[in-house]
Amino acid sequence: MAKDFPTRAENYAQWYNDLVIKADMAENSAVRGCMVIKPYGYAIWEKMQAALDKMFKETGHVNAYFPIFIPKSFFSKEASHVEGFAKECAVVTHYRLKNDPDGKGVVVDENAKLEEELIVRPTSETIIWDTYRNWIQSYRDLPLLINQWANVVRWEMRTRLFLRTAEFLWQEGHTAHATAEEAIAETEQMLNVYADFAENFMAVPVLKGVKSPNERFAGAVETYCIEALMQDGKALQAGTSHFLGQNFAKAFDVQFLSKENKLEHVWATSWGVSTRLMGALIMAHSDDHGLVLPPKLAPTQVVIIPIYKTNEQLAAITEKVDEIVKNLKARGITVKYDDRDTYKPGWKFNEYEFKGVPVRLAIGPRDLENGTVEVSRRDTLEKSSFQIADIETKIEHLLQSIQDNLFQKAVDFRENMTTKADTWEEFVDLLDNKGGFILAHWDGTPETEQEIKEKTKATIRLIPLDARPEEGRCILTGNPSARRVVFARAY
Amino acid sequence: MAKDFPTRAENYAQWYNDLVIKADMAENSAVRGCMVIKPYGYAIWEKMQAALDKMFKETGHVNAYFPIFIPKSFFSKEASHVEGFAKECAVVTHYRLKNDPDGKGVVVDENAKLEEELIVRPTSETIIWDTYRNWIQSYRDLPLLINQWANVVRWEMRTRLFLRTAEFLWQEGHTAHATAEEAIAETEQMLNVYADFAENFMAVPVLKGVKSPNERFAGAVETYCIEALMQDGKALQAGTSHFLGQNFAKAFDVQFLSKENKLEHVWATSWGVSTRLMGALIMAHSDDHGLVLPPKLAPTQVVIIPIYKTNEQLAAITEKVDEIVKNLKARGITVKYDDRDTYKPGWKFNEYEFKGVPVRLAIGPRDLENGTVEVSRRDTLEKSSFQIADIETKIEHLLQSIQDNLFQKAVDFRENMTTKADTWEEFVDLLDNKGGFILAHWDGTPETEQEIKEKTKATIRLIPLDARPEEGRCILTGNPSARRVVFARAY
Repeated sequence: MAKDFPTRAENYAQWYNDLVIKADMAENSAVRGCMVIKPYGYAIWEKMQAALDKMFKETGHVNAYFPIFIPKSFFSKEASHVEGFAKECAVVTHYRLKNDPDGKGVVVDENAKLEEELIVRPTSETIIWDTYRNWIQSYRDLPLLINQWANVVRWEMRTRLFLRTAEFLWQEGHTAHATAEEAIAETEQMLNVYADFAENFMAVPVLKGVKSPNERFAGAVETYCIEALMQDGKALQAGTSHFLGQNFAKAFDVQFLSKENKLEHVWATSWGVSTRLMGALIMAHSDDHGLVLPPKLAPTQVVIIPIYKTNEQLAAITEKVDEIVKNLKARGITVKYDDRDTYKPGWKFNEYEFKGVPVRLAIGPRDLENGTVEVSRRDTLEKSSFQIADIETKIEHLLQSIQDNLFQKAVDFRENMTTKADTWEEFVDLLDNKGGFILAHWDGTPETEQEIKEKTKATIRLIPLDARPEEGRCILTGNPSARRVVFARAY
Repeated sequence: MAKDFPTRAENYAQWYNDLVIKADMAENSAVRGCMVIKPYGYAIWEKMQAALDKMFKETGHVNAYFPIFIPKSFFSKEASHVEGFAKECAVVTHYRLKNDPDGKGVVVDENAKLEEELIVRPTSETIIWDTYRNWIQSYRDLPLLINQWANVVRWEMRTRLFLRTAEFLWQEGHTAHATAEEAIAETEQMLNVYADFAENFMAVPVLKGVKSPNERFAGAVETYCIEALMQDGKALQAGTSHFLGQNFAKAFDVQFLSKENKLEHVWATSWGVSTRLMGALIMAHSDDHGLVLPPKLAPTQVVIIPIYKTNEQLAAITEKVDEIVKNLKARGITVKYDDRDTYKPGWKFNEYEFKGVPVRLAIGPRDLENGTVEVSRRDTLEKSSFQIADIETKIEHLLQSIQDNLFQKAVDFRENMTTKADTWEEFVDLLDNKGGFILAHWDGTPETEQEIKEKTKATIRLIPLDARPEEGRCILTGNPSARRVVFARAY
């Protein structure tokens, strides 16, 4: 199968888009900005969901489901929230169609106009905090630790598959606490859960930090985030966790009776990751041969391809392969035996390489004789030969080694692409000629941040949680600064 | 915890509604007709999803995701489909809000009107078949066996929690086949999957059959369904599987090149079950004491409550319970040890009874001495005493026995509530004084079916798949009929 698409060096944006489509991950739909997630892409998302859901439950959260629609008036209740989302809302105004009196189609029935318009949720803080008002009376009802898996809609004007789409899938955690300290601890805990998932499942190293006020979530007191670096040197925000203070509790009048018998407003957090992670996964590891998937998220971890000329040979190979498949499955390894006779081995090799299957085994009559199998790993494209005798242990180690190698490669890349800039000239030169994360001093004002963004398209990705104090001068204004922050151009 | 709600005999509808709300399954939201599924209810839905998803995958299906919005014009392409859904559509007409120039809130921005209105999907045949056109070229692309887990919206005027809501969660399978035979086989296979799930997981026996033309899905050639009987004698459609013929392939121009190199339209099926199953589950088994959940879908299968006066007693009990919990978990049994000191044992007993936990264990100092534990089963409310020695085996058997007993009880109830009627008087008398499934002759015309519905509110629930030929006379018209069909009043 010849997959005709540009290399990363030729055209990174086109490479990404073609890869997503040709590797059957997703495609654009007939609805502007909305994507279709195809089965192969969705299988990866299911693996992400399963891993995250387990981590959420292990940290005491439960799932629930809230309405997709939010009454328009709810948005006005939290001032900065409406400011942040009003401009990209899908609005439901009617609840019925009727036959077009002048033609063959259907038209909106003007007699079925809603009294109050409904917004298709861009995020659910408002409808959820309106609900929590009835769920929370006393400190005994706290903490309330709830997550929702759902679709949301933000009417983005410029969309890209997975990275920015009008509709996307995500999870949104919404928790309620008796004290600010508890809420902050929850916000930080979930940031760590996200970082853990990104690094240990996606094999994508992330920086942890807080956003500058300009980049905060609409309605948050503090926004924590994880930031990853893509192969083109651009940053990608991979997850956010917000400390919402008492903003939503006040907007929706959610109070509780404390242990001391005092009526107090509840403290809130919200946190989310989305199908955007699919974009990060693809961009972080894939190469000019196609997808490269970390074993922990690959729908198929091992594919086995028979090499044969006669039916007798195939029968003998299949007998051995059935045994291998059984042993691999017993270890929890996802394996596929592709014995289709409609495609040649070479075509299959290309296909699975393109689809990023971590390990490919090929087995022919000679291998049977020798008790060996040919092994090819997708990350390095290296080939070797394994004894069949203890194949399952070797494959298990190989998968772990691929997982570790992908992570280490991404760590090394990021290290190489993280640079300090002390002057404006250095800063601009790095942005234009190298990319990556740039550690630089900033005077701490929103105005300066805005001016830097307008001049260079670079934004403050985060203020690192582990930033050490360091006296310096702002790269733009020369005003004093107490520590470096992380700048980058970003997705 | 005193749960004040009517008995089934007093007011079945109110009993159901109160039970759903007070047992923390779901509640009405601020958005008309949309529900909030609360964590306890959602945990059951997650168990349903997991079991069904496994069955779908075992029968060769994969998951994918299609847009929530459907361009209005798509609906007009399949004539009977638009007829069926146009009257209950949520319509998105704008994509932006703006500050209200006259006030504090936000209003719809009339400058952001969509060129073509978008419908929030009531079901996804149209958007999916528009997509399949690009996915299917040759017989090699078939069959295409795809399922989607999603939310859908149908603007129902009279809603009831789980049973009929404006937004609900469901899965919708959409498959494409080269021949009518294959598509029909798929339709029947999925009906059997649904029946298997209803009977073996929900412990709800179902009849299998096909709908009369009046009750067919809008756009289907044949609608298969499973029908369950609730405790008030009303029927509930628990799942449908549709043979769509070539209707959608023709409407969306989906053709494939056959093995014989001929261009042909593709054959289609679709099939779905929804959060409506939650309503069926609750109504089929629960009693005047609260929820009764079949062990296979109960979020907590076993709860253990310590009975103690001193901290020393609690410590000794906890030590023994930790061991029991470990052994039960090793068997895959979900168990919760409720050692909260903020509630008394009596309160806990009531709480878990109300929440339908299948097995409750109580253990006090006397039990410890005797090496026993007090066991209470939720279905019969019977109590007994088990030796702790091999408790995990006994509990495993008990859970299976509860699962079986609930199913058998429901089977017996349905048997008792299934009656033949040979005259109109018998038919009306049965409907008014007994309810249940009524087997009666029908002359096969839509007009007669409609008249019976108008006169009695009873509908033909299905024409049984296993119906034996039997000469008879239609209960309304006296015209000849070749077999009995199943009538009932229904949810």
